[in-house]
Parts: sequence; structure tokens; C-alpha cells
Amino acid sequence: MTNQRLSCGLDLCCAVNLNDCLIYASESRYEFICVSLVHPLFKREFISGPAKNRPGPLTRPDLVLSSSGINSLSFHFGLSGVTLKLKNGINKNVNLARIISDKITNNNCTFQVWIQVPMENPIRQTYSYRTEDYSEDENPWEWWNSFRVICDYNKKLGVSLIVSHDLPEEEEVDRWLGEPVRCLILPTTLFLTNKKGYPVLSKAHQALVRRFAMQEVQFILTGASRYQSISYYHNYLDYLWKGCQNDGTVEKFARGYEDYLQCPLQPLMDNLESQTYEIFEKDPVKYREYQSAIYEAINAIVYKMQEERTIVIMVVGAGRGPLVTASLNAAKMAYREVKVYAVEKNPNAIITLQALQRDMWKEKVTVISCDMREWNPPEKADIIVSELLGSFGDNELSPECLDNVLKFLRDDGINIPQSYTSYIAPMQSSKLYNEVRQLRDKDKHPLAHFETLYVVHLQNKYDIANPKPLFTFKHPNPDALADNSRYETKTFQVEQNCVLHGFSGYFTAILYENITLSIEPSTYSSDMFSWFPIFFPLKEPVQLKAGDEIVVHFWRRCGSKKVWYEWCLSKPVPVSIHNTTGRSSVIGL
Amino acid sequence: MTNQRLSCGLDLCCAVNLNDCLIYASESRYEFICVSLVHPLFKREFISGPAKNRPGPLTRPDLVLSSSGINSLSFHFGLSGVTLKLKNGINKNVNLARIISDKITNNNCTFQVWIQVPMENPIRQTYSYRTEDYSEDENPWEWWNSFRVICDYNKKLGVSLIVSHDLPEEEEVDRWLGEPVRCLILPTTLFLTNKKGYPVLSKAHQALVRRFAMQEVQFILTGASRYQSISYYHNYLDYLWKGCQNDGTVEKFARGYEDYLQCPLQPLMDNLESQTYEIFEKDPVKYREYQSAIYEAINAIVYKMQEERTIVIMVVGAGRGPLVTASLNAAKMAYREVKVYAVEKNPNAIITLQALQRDMWKEKVTVISCDMREWNPPEKADIIVSELLGSFGDNELSPECLDNVLKFLRDDGINIPQSYTSYIAPMQSSKLYNEVRQLRDKDKHPLAHFETLYVVHLQNKYDIANPKPLFTFKHPNPDALADNSRYETKTFQVEQNCVLHGFSGYFTAILYENITLSIEPSTYSSDMFSWFPIFFPLKEPVQLKAGDEIVVHFWRRCGSKKVWYEWCLSKPVPVSIHNTTGRSSVIGL
Repeated sequence: MTNQRLSCGLDLCCAVNLNDCLIYASESRYEFICVSLVHPLFKREFISGPAKNRPGPLTRPDLVLSSSGINSLSFHFGLSGVTLKLKNGINKNVNLARIISDKITNNNCTFQVWIQVPMENPIRQTYSYRTEDYSEDENPWEWWNSFRVICDYNKKLGVSLIVSHDLPEEEEVDRWLGEPVRCLILPTTLFLTNKKGYPVLSKAHQALVRRFAMQEVQFILTGASRYQSISYYHNYLDYLWKGCQNDGTVEKFARGYEDYLQCPLQPLMDNLESQTYEIFEKDPVKYREYQSAIYEAINAIVYKMQEERTIVIMVVGAGRGPLVTASLNAAKMAYREVKVYAVEKNPNAIITLQALQRDMWKEKVTVISCDMREWNPPEKADIIVSELLGSFGDNELSPECLDNVLKFLRDDGINIPQSYTSYIAPMQSSKLYNEVRQLRDKDKHPLAHFETLYVVHLQNKYDIANPKPLFTFKHPNPDALADNSRYETKTFQVEQNCVLHGFSGYFTAILYENITLSIEPSTYSSDMFSWFPIFFPLKEPVQLKAGDEIVVHFWRRCGSKKVWYEWCLSKPVPVSIHNTTGRSSVIGL
Repeated sequence: MTNQRLSCGLDLCCAVNLNDCLIYASESRYEFICVSLVHPLFKREFISGPAKNRPGPLTRPDLVLSSSGINSLSFHFGLSGVTLKLKNGINKNVNLARIISDKITNNNCTFQVWIQVPMENPIRQTYSYRTEDYSEDENPWEWWNSFRVICDYNKKLGVSLIVSHDLPEEEEVDRWLGEPVRCLILPTTLFLTNKKGYPVLSKAHQALVRRFAMQEVQFILTGASRYQSISYYHNYLDYLWKGCQNDGTVEKFARGYEDYLQCPLQPLMDNLESQTYEIFEKDPVKYREYQSAIYEAINAIVYKMQEERTIVIMVVGAGRGPLVTASLNAAKMAYREVKVYAVEKNPNAIITLQALQRDMWKEKVTVISCDMREWNPPEKADIIVSELLGSFGDNELSPECLDNVLKFLRDDGINIPQSYTSYIAPMQSSKLYNEVRQLRDKDKHPLAHFETLYVVHLQNKYDIANPKPLFTFKHPNPDALADNSRYETKTFQVEQNCVLHGFSGYFTAILYENITLSIEPSTYSSDMFSWFPIFFPLKEPVQLKAGDEIVVHFWRRCGSKKVWYEWCLSKPVPVSIHNTTGRSSVIGL
């Protein structure tokens, strides 16, 4: 979620009098300050002088600031975080990592630790012409990656990214988007002066800020002011920040759900609540596309029709009726009489359907209060319409439901959707790894939370490779023997060193011919918000090297009462089968 | 532990009548048989013929054998295991692994699965002259390694190693010793004929059998007999097996403790039991070496002595008196009068000491019932003797105890031991990984069992590299300020692809000058059995490649009431700090 307001701190390299500093920063509009924990007078003494053997801590005494002073200035003026800078690779920082880990593992630890990491290796920047001397180890992302692994992905650990003059490759910036970047550190030297004499950022740096604005990022301004007032920088950032606020349909709908793990709906086992129907009925895209598909299907049926008759449409899983409405609208557009059966198993939704039938739809619609799998219809259908798709396509058991229903379809009948395909892609997201990890339930299998799929509005992530199609289902099923179990192996190439935390999942559906719905990023149906992606976690992060191949195996397995997924890796390292025998998560039939 | 009796099965490639087969094998002295699950008549039919679509399993019916027939022949004739052969790398076997995993994950599964793996890649054997075509992936150990990882190290999964004519490199055989090898499969073609006309194995193959005899390995004979009776092979193996039984001092003492995890003693917090003292007093080496060290120390003291006086020896932590006896013996050998203080905190041991003093030692010994850390002695000592060492040297807090005591030592006095050093080495052992894993306690930290050190008689393991010294403690401590905390980084080279499951730990001690005790393998004090090695687990196995560097970090951390270890990896991949803040295991002061 983008913050509604900019939060930018001021880094004060030499803060002698804290009160003066606070007043200065506050009057210049900054929301917080960064100062050395050790008073400047003690700093040199502590590092090399007599203080080295003096017992006790050497920070500023508590009494420098009155607590009313702290509270009256800003919430952020309390000590909410400690920050320190990584200057080299892990082998020189393991003991530092241990000390930090030690402090923040303690449950009483109230502060965050922001690790300052330069976007570009300073040594590489200096010697950029000598590229042969540059090894992967020297990329500061590696410094951070090892550091946080050693600290066991502690949630109190975040990144303060020091923005460089020359920005790294796009792909490297992408990788940072999969990290817990809490803050961008902007040196004043980054700023250019515009025609009016005020500080502005280059187009490239503006784009960078815009990318991180999707996450809850703060800023720190560091370095000497080159303008009459240091507040000019804040003014500019404030202006830039406001322009970053994204108020698209999906963003509005999804606000507050960023990276929030939800369990997929189980509409077969549970009855959906009225509120759930209400939300999804508001989707501005889905029913429009369904209506177009039904319209095209009616025309196709009419075209092939031997004798004039009323077209029969069955809406299976009618909910509160949006697809019934879409069917009637489509028929009207096609100047055709239709007879619609609205089949629904949820007794609460049935009441709404019956009311709509009595007051609006009249004799055109017959409401059937029945589970579609048990229904015995009086006639066959020209068109069967359903909206049984989950975020991963088949994961709400559309294939199993439709297998039962399609025997009511005429030989030349049309099922909407005609087919759907799930997609997977390897993903880095330390945020989601941590979110899953904390769902551990000691009364369940120790890996249960890692063997469950989640619905999640993915934000704080890096896509390691593009999605690939996984399982496809067609209706009517062209196979002699309907078998909805699947096993597929997919291979992905790794472009740069990164970490695999799991797989994102999507679907595309062909409603009818070229009318489709998609949440797969490259073909996304704009403004549609009915589905967030799926996340399949891995029990342990897998460190990847540029050039590695990820080979992942996915199974869709079917029992008489349940369906479940299993997944594992065979490359670059083998990783055991997740959710074997469906021990941790199943979808009930 | 070596089996007292040989267990060798007979592989019957075509078993039509099971009863006949059982009688044949039993009369030829074989302990079990291996037959195809599918009756030979059905086999072809099942793979390609009409049975393909026939419902139900195609194994032999239950009624082929009467259960009395099964029981009267051998315990092994029940279906105790299923075996199948790996013929290629994991990418072709992931679905097979899933199916196997599925069956054996079920708690009701009563049988083991033995995966047959050839020692040498059959393709490599054929094309041995074309080495450039040979990739690491083709080593059958890789096939097995990926297979069992995919099956999540299931304990029911074992290896049946198909012994090859040309044996692989020693190092490759070593690696198999870190795997759950349940069985060696011996083709009859391996056997040579001796002068008397009977089958024997080559010297190299005998050596191989001897190496696996340390583990509970069984055999399967496969292939056509080339002798008058198939029993000749069994007779030879029986003879060979008997010659493999190792009855050394340590082996006798350790029998039954192979790879059994024990928690280290905490003699400071707990009082040892009489039985514990009794066992350790029987060590044939330890007290002999202590006595020699005391003897040399007495001579050194005498040599530097300014004036004739009685030498004062303090035995701190005297237990039931073995070091008191060693001191008195050493003094007798040196023709010197000594005064011995026997300091012991355990009130039960004190009773024994007092009885020994009254009946044997008389006025030469003064028994002090006191914790050595609180004792206030009436005079200073020439020699302080203690046996406070654990398997990892300092892990029973010898440094902390002796820091307190050494103020009683004369300036020119001698502490025995003078110094000790812990050692660590990277280790592969799927057995120990599994043993640790099953110690999970849902009321503790989820990693608690992986963040504990164990005492264990290591057997089923592969040493990835030789041990390196870690922490050294000297007494008297030459440092101005005694600080027993430590931080060390050790680097190990990986010679071949393998899996890191943790680190073995050992110690060496210099009792006095060149009189030492050691459980570090290269300098092991023969026949000494007082200490088994230490095992530091890792929470997740780390897949290693030939040429990798392992960089491990170990801390010894000291609080006012406890001491603990922390450890982590920074290479080849970072692995988080184990036992951070001592959250899972500490040694109480």
C-alpha cells in the first residue's frame, strides 16, 4: 500500500544538541531524524581512545530529551529504529550479524534494524572500467542476502537502500522489490536544480521512487543542503510522492490486502456469504465478458440450428444471479427467446434468486434449489454457463463439478468457459516467506503452513521468470475417460542470483472463442478484481545462481472426496514433495 | 553394530511357485528371498497386454502361502520390504518418488522400501574410455540423493547397493557409508573360484564387505549359481562375515550405542550417578595417562624446587577417587611424599571418598566436601589435577571451573591438563539427520532439536573433510583478563558432491608436556572409551558440490549462569545462526 503521506527523515551526521536538531528537522517539515547513537564527543574516544576499556554503554543519556519534547514533535522521534551500514561481504560481517540477531531475537526488542545497503558496490563504481575484477560476491544485494539469512529472516530487519547516482540494471532493481526495503536513502548530491532553482530528481530516479512507492517505503535525506532551505528537498519529495499514488480500480479494491495471505474459498464445502457475492458482483469486467461470450454462443447455436426453438441456458452455480442477468441481456441483444435454469445449492442465495425471478425475470427463468452434481434436469441445454474458477483456475474444483453437469449439454452445445489453464512462476519474496512462516500451528504437521496454497495480492516480490502454463481443462472434456488428475514438470531459467521462496499462480480462461478472462500478468484483463493470484510456498528458501535451472513438479491429485496439489523441486537442488498425500491442505468435494 | 549372524537373501528372478522357492532357499541356508511382486505369468500381460486396463492389483493372491508356512521358514519370509531399481537420474524418477513417498508416508505402512542403486553407472562402465561424456549427474549416488530428498528422507527408505566388478574410488565408497545402506547386492559373477573349487570374493571386494560390516547390512545374492550348490556362496559369506566381527575395547564398550543420540552430561548442574562413575573408571587408558602426567609433573616440580618440602596436589572434582589413586601411585613411582586434597561437590561421591580415605589413603589425603568454585584452601598447590573435559573439550565448563581454582596454584605450579582444544569436521549422515529430526518437541522452539549438541558414537557417516582445531584453552590462562568466550571461522574444502548434515566434534588435551588424550580421529588414544564424539546438527541438509568451500562460524558464549554454543554457515550458502541467545540449549554453571 502506498502511504497517503510522505515520510522522510533527515540524516544528521553530527548532532551535538538533540533538541536543536529536532527543532531544525521539524521546522523543515521532516518527519524524523537519524543521528549517531554515540554522542560525537564520545565517538572518537570510543573507537580508539580511553573509552575502549570503560565499562557501560556510551550512548546519550536518557535525560537529553524530555519525553514531552519527543512526543510533541512527532511520533517518529521516538527511537523506532537503529540503522547501520554494510560495507562488504558476509565473511567480514558474520559476527555483526550474530550481534544484531541476538538483540532482535529477544521478544522485548521494540526497535527495528534498518541495514543500509548501497545499490551499487562503491568499489565497482570506482573501477567500473575494470569489469573483469568484479565478482558476484561484490554485489551489495549478496551482502544483504547473506546477512539476513544468517539472521534467519528476522522480521525486525529491513533494508535502507542507498540510492546511487548511476542506477543498476532494471533486473537488479526488480530484485530489490522482493526484499523488505523500508527506506530509500537519498543523498542531496542526487538532486538536480530545475529552471526555477529548486531541487528535482532525474527521470530515472523519479521512476525508481515510483516503483518503490508501491510498497510502504520511507525516505531519508542525507548530505549537505545546496539550497537556501533544506525544506526544499522535502517539498519536492512530497510533490513527487503525491504523483505516485495509484488510484486504479484494482488498486482501490485491493487496498489493505497487499501481501496479505488468505485461504482460498471452498465454495463446494462452504456456503458463500452474501457479502462475498456482493463484492464479486461489482467486478466491472467479468460479467461484461461473460455476457459477450453468451451472446456469441447464442449466435453460434442459432447459426447451426436445424429448426426454430427456444434456446436453453443453464446457469450452474447461479449465486445471486449475475450470470442469469448476463444471459438475459445477451439474449435480448441477439433478439432471441431463451429459457434459463438457475441452479444453486446455497439456500441463502436461493432466496435472492427466487425474489429476482418473481419480481423481474418471470417465466424466462426457472430457479432450481439443488447441488448441480445431483440435479436431474427435465431437458438438455444449448449453453451451460458457470463461474466456478478460482485464482488457479481449477482450484475450486470446476472440473469435477462440470464433469457431472456436462451430460445435460446437447451434443452441439457450448460450455462457458470452454477451457482454462493455470500458470506458475518462480518468485522471490522474503515478506511472504515470513508471513507463511508465522502461521505455524503447533498442533498441525510442522510443515502444514508451507504445504498450503494462499490467495494473495502480490506486491513485495520479485518475479524470477515469466509464468508458464501448467494444467489445462477443456469442457466438454474431449477425453474418453475423464481424468482430472495431472502431473506436469516446468523448467525456468534463472537470470541473476536470487532466492526462490515459492511460486505464484494465475489462470487464464477461454469463455468462448476469443473472449477470455485472465489474471496472468502478460494478458491481464484490465480492471478485473475478482481474483488475486495464488502463492505456493516452499518450506525453505532456495539460493539460486545466475544460469541455474529451476525444475519444478506439480501434481493435481484426486480422491473420491477431495482434490489436492503436491509440488517439489528436482533442480537446482532437490526439495521434498510438499503436501504429500494431501496431509496439509485439500479442497473438499 | 555388526550383526552377530549373517543375513543373506536369495534373489529369484523367476519364481513361479513360491512354496518351492522358499523351500529351495531355506535348504540352501538363505535367510530370505526376493521375488517379483507380480507373478511372472502376469508380468508381460500387465506391462503391455490386456491386464493394463483390468481393475485391481496384479500381485500373487494371499493364499499362495499358508501363514504357518511363512512363519516356520523364517521371520524374513514375511513381506518386510519392497525393492526397486533406479536406472537413471531424478528428472525421470520424480513421479516414481512421489508414488513411493505416498505409500511410505502413511503411518500404517509396515514395509521398508529398498532402492537398488548400482555402485557404478552402467553407462559409464560401458564407455569408460569416453570420460569427457561423463557428467556428475550420471553418478548413481546423485540418483539416490535426489530421490530420497524428494521423499523427504523417509526413514523407511534404504539403499540396496549393487556391488560392481570394478569398484569406485575409495572416496565414493566412503560417501555410501554416510547413507542408510541396508543391503549389498552381490551378483554371482563377482565371485572367483579358489583352489579348492569354492566361490570367494577378491581382496578388494572383501575389504568392501568389511567396511559395510560396521553397519547393520544384509546381503542379497543374485544371478545363476556356477557351483554344484547355491549354498556354497552362503557358506563363504558366512565365513567372511564372522571374520568381520570387531571385538576391540571401544567396540565392545560402544555396542548398542552406534549412532544413538545422547545429551551431554551436565556435571555442574547435576550430580553424576554412581553407575556413571563406575563406567568411566574402567577406562584402561585415561587414568594411566593421567598417572604418567602427574608423575612427570612431580619430577618437574622437584627439579625446580628450592627447598625440600611435601608436594601438594589438589584433585578438583575427585568423583570416587580415581585421580587421587593416580596421584598417590605417581608419587610412589617418583619416591616422593605428597599431600593430596580431594575436592568434590557431589555428596554421594563424598561418602565413597571418605571411606577410601579412612581405609586406604589415610593421612595422605584430605577429603573436602565442597564445590571447587567456592572452596577456600588452607595452602597453595604445586599441582592441580582435574578431569572436567567433555567430548568437545570445554563443553562441561572446565574453563569456568578452573578459572576459579587456579588462584590456589603456586606461581610455578602445574595444572593437569595444561591445555585442550576442540575440533570440528563437516559430516554427511542421513541417519543422524533423521534421528535429530524425530526429536521434535512441539512445546519447544521448532528448531530446538537442531540447536542442541549431542554425544554420539558416530558410525553411519561420511567425513567430508578432516577435522580442524577450533577453540583452545590454556591453564593457567596466560591472558591478562580471563575471557572464555570464543569466535572462530573454519573453512573446509569439498572433494566430491555430497550433503552436509552437521559437524562432528572432538577434543585433544595436553595433560602434561607430551602426554596427551585425544578423541580426534588422526591422534586417537587407542582403546580409550570415555568419550564419544559430539554432533552439531544443521536444521536443513546442505547440498554440496565438488570444489565448494564450507565456511562455518562457531561461537562459545558466556553468561553469568550459563555457557552455550552458536553456529552458522556463510558458505557455500548462508545458513542462519543456530541456538541464537542460547534459546535451545545451554550448559548451566
